[in-house]
Amino acid sequence: MIIVMGLPGAGKSTILQKASTTNYVILNYGTLMFQVAEKQKLVKNRDEMRKLEPEQQKNIQRMVVDEIKKHGKNVILDTHCSIKTPKGYLPGLPYYILKELDVEKLVYVTAEPHELIERRKNDPTRVRDPDTEESILEHDTINRTLLATYAALTGATINIIINRAGKLDDSVKQLEQLLT
Amino acid sequence: MIIVMGLPGAGKSTILQKASTTNYVILNYGTLMFQVAEKQKLVKNRDEMRKLEPEQQKNIQRMVVDEIKKHGKNVILDTHCSIKTPKGYLPGLPYYILKELDVEKLVYVTAEPHELIERRKNDPTRVRDPDTEESILEHDTINRTLLATYAALTGATINIIINRAGKLDDSVKQLEQLLT
Amino acid sequence: MIIVMGLPGAGKSTILQKASTTNYVILNYGTLMFQVAEKQKLVKNRDEMRKLEPEQQKNIQRMVVDEIKKHGKNVILDTHCSIKTPKGYLPGLPYYILKELDVEKLVYVTAEPHELIERRKNDPTRVRDPDTEESILEHDTINRTLLATYAALTGATINIIINRAGKLDDSVKQLEQLLT
Repeated sequence: MIIVMGLPGAGKSTILQKASTTNYVILNYGTLMFQVAEKQKLVKNRDEMRKLEPEQQKNIQRMVVDEIKKHGKNVILDTHCSIKTPKGYLPGLPYYILKELDVEKLVYVTAEPHELIERRKNDPTRVRDPDTEESILEHDTINRTLLATYAALTGATINIIINRAGKLDDSVKQLEQLLT
Repeated sequence: MIIVMGLPGAGKSTILQKASTTNYVILNYGTLMFQVAEKQKLVKNRDEMRKLEPEQQKNIQRMVVDEIKKHGKNVILDTHCSIKTPKGYLPGLPYYILKELDVEKLVYVTAEPHELIERRKNDPTRVRDPDTEESILEHDTINRTLLATYAALTGATINIIINRAGKLDDSVKQLEQLLT
Repeated sequence: MIIVMGLPGAGKSTILQKASTTNYVILNYGTLMFQVAEKQKLVKNRDEMRKLEPEQQKNIQRMVVDEIKKHGKNVILDTHCSIKTPKGYLPGLPYYILKELDVEKLVYVTAEPHELIERRKNDPTRVRDPDTEESILEHDTINRTLLATYAALTGATINIIINRAGKLDDSVKQLEQLLT
């Protein structure tokens, strides 16, 4: 299994759409989380997911893992390194989740903070809190640290894709090289 | 359980004293460590704690965990992310300790290095080694990395409070929001 | 056991050769890895080690651990924090390896990126990919993060030796202080 993570707005989902991912099933962790949470009447839209209590998030995570494992080996899991909630950064892949998964590669998609701010402004599909460059840097640093921790816990490799403005094709190629 | 950690001199204990912490028992890990070590005639004052051999520190840690668990659920644990010893940085919450505790939130109190140096100079209650801005930055970076690792291991949220000079009230409010 | 890690070219092996390491057996993880891989006809020279598939690396790692454990307690393990492969950074000491070892101290030898580039150029014994200052910084940051993670997982202390140009003796002394 390959896990692809990213800062919100860094372009992770776009890269995954553009990349040739034949032989892989792409699962979006957030979508699976939302489907479970919606079924349980905990939320009405995806942005409300970030407002959930940590304990609720954890229960949903456990159900999602069972769903993922049904798909077998050639899975790309599209997820967050951490989720920014009003009660702090919640690790997206805590050890009790990670140890259930057989992870081979960890990919983190990030971008320059000032480019991220622009992209988030121009994204009409999501209701977002405004972010400063400082708060984005804090989130990015925490994500990179979690990335290395996830690698130490699983033995999976660490790959960082810096998705620069106007260089989407380079990012797509970087991902595709990891899929062969 | 909420674990509040900090760089020495960053103001963690002051913030804990000023915050409304009704419904919580505040336990100071260092004090518990000292009480155990003193009882075992290993040290005479708190500053000698940092000179203990790693193996001695570990044995004391294990005894302190048993003490903490007696207090049940609504506990704020006041501790260090890592302890700077002559033989290196000792992680304050190694995995063999963490997995015994049910941690919901991790809070790290830090400060700008130059402000920290000033505060440490003006603290007459402790005998301290002089620190440079570079060595404080190294300690802070290691602490932030350990913080994220503790979160990945437990699933607890990560919260960073930067306690700025003259902004103690903001830091207190930031902590109080995590207690509700 | 003491584990000494470093960025390639930072001078880790030189420091280990110059240091008084009486009472310790020094084991080179890379050499043990190479011996196992060569015996299995997977590689012909040491530089090919970095081109191995992650799964192959993992199998060799497990065999090497068994070899290390035969040497008992006073061991200095000379290894990498992570190995840079075409498929990403492979953690040198994933948790499934670390939990088999009784680690007391973790030492990381690093250097200023521009000094590292010079040293790598002047090292005729190895075939190396050219590295930029940016890619060295990325590797160094990942290594420092992994270092702290290894410490949190084992409870071992963290020690960072910055091996500066012309200051080899200082680095040697810093290591020797950890051996007493």
